[in-house]
Amino acid sequence: MSTASRLLSVCRHGGVRPYCVAFSQASDIQAVTPKSPSVQVTIKRDMATTSNERFLTIENLNPCIKVMEYAVRGPLVIRATEIEKELEKGAKKPFKDVIRANIGDCHAMGQKPITFFRQVLGLVLYPELFDDPKITEDVKQRARDILSGTRGCSVGSYTDSSGIEVIRKHVANYIQKRDGGISSDPDNIILSTGASGAIKNILALFHATIDGKRSGVMVPIPQYPLYSATISEFDLQQVEYYLDESKKWGLDIGELERSVKEARKVCVPRVIVVINPGNPTGQVLTRQNIEEIIKFAHRERLFIFADEVYQDNVYDKDSKFHSFKKVLTEMGEPYSKMEMASFMSVSKGYMGECGIRGGYAEILNMHPDVKAMLLKAISAQLCSSTIGQAAIDCVVNPPQPGEPSYDLFIKEKNNVLQSLKRRAEMVTTSFNSFEGFSCNPVMGAMYAFPQFKLPPKAIEAAKKVGQKPDVFYAFQLLERTGICIVPGSGFGQKEGTYHFRTTILPQEEELKKMLSMFDNFHKEFMSQYK
Amino acid sequence: MSTASRLLSVCRHGGVRPYCVAFSQASDIQAVTPKSPSVQVTIKRDMATTSNERFLTIENLNPCIKVMEYAVRGPLVIRATEIEKELEKGAKKPFKDVIRANIGDCHAMGQKPITFFRQVLGLVLYPELFDDPKITEDVKQRARDILSGTRGCSVGSYTDSSGIEVIRKHVANYIQKRDGGISSDPDNIILSTGASGAIKNILALFHATIDGKRSGVMVPIPQYPLYSATISEFDLQQVEYYLDESKKWGLDIGELERSVKEARKVCVPRVIVVINPGNPTGQVLTRQNIEEIIKFAHRERLFIFADEVYQDNVYDKDSKFHSFKKVLTEMGEPYSKMEMASFMSVSKGYMGECGIRGGYAEILNMHPDVKAMLLKAISAQLCSSTIGQAAIDCVVNPPQPGEPSYDLFIKEKNNVLQSLKRRAEMVTTSFNSFEGFSCNPVMGAMYAFPQFKLPPKAIEAAKKVGQKPDVFYAFQLLERTGICIVPGSGFGQKEGTYHFRTTILPQEEELKKMLSMFDNFHKEFMSQYK
Repeated sequence: MSTASRLLSVCRHGGVRPYCVAFSQASDIQAVTPKSPSVQVTIKRDMATTSNERFLTIENLNPCIKVMEYAVRGPLVIRATEIEKELEKGAKKPFKDVIRANIGDCHAMGQKPITFFRQVLGLVLYPELFDDPKITEDVKQRARDILSGTRGCSVGSYTDSSGIEVIRKHVANYIQKRDGGISSDPDNIILSTGASGAIKNILALFHATIDGKRSGVMVPIPQYPLYSATISEFDLQQVEYYLDESKKWGLDIGELERSVKEARKVCVPRVIVVINPGNPTGQVLTRQNIEEIIKFAHRERLFIFADEVYQDNVYDKDSKFHSFKKVLTEMGEPYSKMEMASFMSVSKGYMGECGIRGGYAEILNMHPDVKAMLLKAISAQLCSSTIGQAAIDCVVNPPQPGEPSYDLFIKEKNNVLQSLKRRAEMVTTSFNSFEGFSCNPVMGAMYAFPQFKLPPKAIEAAKKVGQKPDVFYAFQLLERTGICIVPGSGFGQKEGTYHFRTTILPQEEELKKMLSMFDNFHKEFMSQYK
Repeated sequence: MSTASRLLSVCRHGGVRPYCVAFSQASDIQAVTPKSPSVQVTIKRDMATTSNERFLTIENLNPCIKVMEYAVRGPLVIRATEIEKELEKGAKKPFKDVIRANIGDCHAMGQKPITFFRQVLGLVLYPELFDDPKITEDVKQRARDILSGTRGCSVGSYTDSSGIEVIRKHVANYIQKRDGGISSDPDNIILSTGASGAIKNILALFHATIDGKRSGVMVPIPQYPLYSATISEFDLQQVEYYLDESKKWGLDIGELERSVKEARKVCVPRVIVVINPGNPTGQVLTRQNIEEIIKFAHRERLFIFADEVYQDNVYDKDSKFHSFKKVLTEMGEPYSKMEMASFMSVSKGYMGECGIRGGYAEILNMHPDVKAMLLKAISAQLCSSTIGQAAIDCVVNPPQPGEPSYDLFIKEKNNVLQSLKRRAEMVTTSFNSFEGFSCNPVMGAMYAFPQFKLPPKAIEAAKKVGQKPDVFYAFQLLERTGICIVPGSGFGQKEGTYHFRTTILPQEEELKKMLSMFDNFHKEFMSQYK
């Protein structure tokens, strides 16, 4: 076997296209940023001899996979899982459980499933349940409708790649009702594996080079790391715009303009992602703000990704969820003809059925030829899970007043949403009482994203162990209290500021305990490093 | 707005890398094959004005999405759906139903779900069922075990990205038992969205350029179009090796060597895909053949993808399923250290739960650093559906002799497999009685892939309407009988030969009717074009 090294010129990743260009400051999200304008990676033909005869090595791995990061499930979460196993084996720690405040995983934090959802899903999977007199007729009718849309009357059959037609019709009805009668076409609905499945499928359409420049995707900072991870994976260019922490994480059009102007030097911006209500920031956009964003997107020729998975999660009494579709349609032409996609999920809201993996996208004004390509591309994934599709049906076709299942449904739904509202307030108030913390109100979604100041000694201590200060703080918190949060650098944050994301999902008594443990930890930490 | 055209040089797709290089003859799979060595695509900055102000157009779409094709869900299937809608509206046709013989969709063709599966899935989704005395204790215990592996005791929680640990342990036990005691490590198991989810995730690791050449993926011809579609999507190089129709679709090592030798001129072959039992060919590889393939893969430094989703579907009395893992392990070093992945699904076998979207991959000898990258990459997909994972648990941890649910389970399982065996024989016999048809025995899997001769007049007629002859034949069959098959060109076939794939899945009485209608159609077609 030849022992000569072979050189691989990774031309696609050199030149003007470092992996992650932050236009005003360095991003913390991407761990690997090629520094030189012409990157050369050495591939050894005889790598096998140095790595136990392995043909697939870090050196010849897809470089896009190498650079992608997904902070919500990063090293802290891996360590949290290790700690859980240590606890199981009887290790002594100053805490009994790991509190997974890192991920919006409602049921994992003790939220009970909504009975209506589980009855419908139980019926479609196990039709013997149609004989159960405890399940009311209106619920059974919904299950029958779903089964009538499957082939062979079984959820074990493949569906059309865009999903079961009757469910897509229900989605369209739901959107139409939500948006005050603005029509929605079932052929514009694609049922997907969570919202993330649809986001990835539509983003994949943009992976192209224009004038030798990569396609750019504008994302808010702080942002949900699905976007940065997918942008890396698809070799797109991340274009960052900063939300204004001093204005309750509001979206400033001047900042969008700065960002796009700088981005145009190195890429061709083609997409703008807006998350409303915000993740991780919890902000809820005003209608006026949405109008400004739409006008900006039109001026700059951007396809709008409206991540609206938290549309049921608005707690602030002065705020209201406005869908991008409604605003854009009501603005009239030319805006009402703009291309956009809106995303929804069964994982969030009041149902929190994350593991079921259901979601949908409504796609507006997409060129028919492009839409045909999208449908072709998703056909190779066959279809999303029928149970995920059925769960979406539950979201968009819930019990109505007068139906036998309505009272229980609305009671369970309101209990969850009212409790989330109380927890949103509890978290905000608590964090604002911590030394050096400032936390915007959690107006919506399921997260708080407080800023905290760290004493210089803590920053030094972090440097010594090779960690970013916010990561150091989060690791200390995890080891001493079992509370698992996500350091702000995983979402992007302005240089020199420190944040973290925590969910507001522990049940109320648990959340009180968590905030009290957190408070004690923070006091100790501050006195240690003062 | 500028009206000047801008030129985009799609350098990644020009030069030595046409989309689909067939090394001995032209492939029928890829519709778009850039002909010139330096492709120039024109992007008009003012495209908006010619396409109703749309920013995302066919011209600036990801070219990889543009070229991908997925024949199993192509134009014939779209037409089949249209015909179904016409029939619903009362259109008069010479048939009452469309028979979807295009896709391995068991329940859609009338196969009943296995009771054990639906009870377990019903229980984990709708735990009220634990009170149902009709469900036996052994089934309830399995559901309890699965729920104990979820967070918050709910399938509504996210799982680890590689899947619920207790299920991965059951998978490892199953593999170990299947392979006569050869050990399997749960940490090598990744639960996925059907087998295709895992195939895509692992193939994504190879999307890289080496010495300026693309990574090559060797696929059998005829092949399952998931591979060609994913290869296009990931901008990899398809390297085709032909199965030998004259030897019951056997795999000839000389042909592998021819193929890889030609491939090395334009790409760096890094993966070999083997589908066993074969789709669409139905062949079952002998142990000796598998050994030869493994030796070839070692010589050529290829990572092995063993698509073994039909491992329960062997009908030929002289054939037996041999797992690649068992053979490779028993061959000893250096082969036992080779990197490979084996794929399994809940969609096939005797259960046929396609819509549930469950699957797994066992990954062997992958470099730990590469495996860490794979786990990181799938973490951005959060996790596969918990119900799909639970369905995999049913496959790998079925009722055992002596357990109360065993008798019903084994009866249902055997009924399906014995009926499939009868249908496999029925299809082979029938097709071999058609004029100009020759059909290899369906030794395994769920498909027949007969070759048929077409009279010159039929080929002319096809040309006149701009269709390939096999596509023309399939469209005629669909329009006249409602039978939907997939033309052989969707799977690749040798130049000048014509094939189609049909499933053997219609229930026995239905299949008899289908074959009789097919027979009549073929006679008419032949007399028409003689």
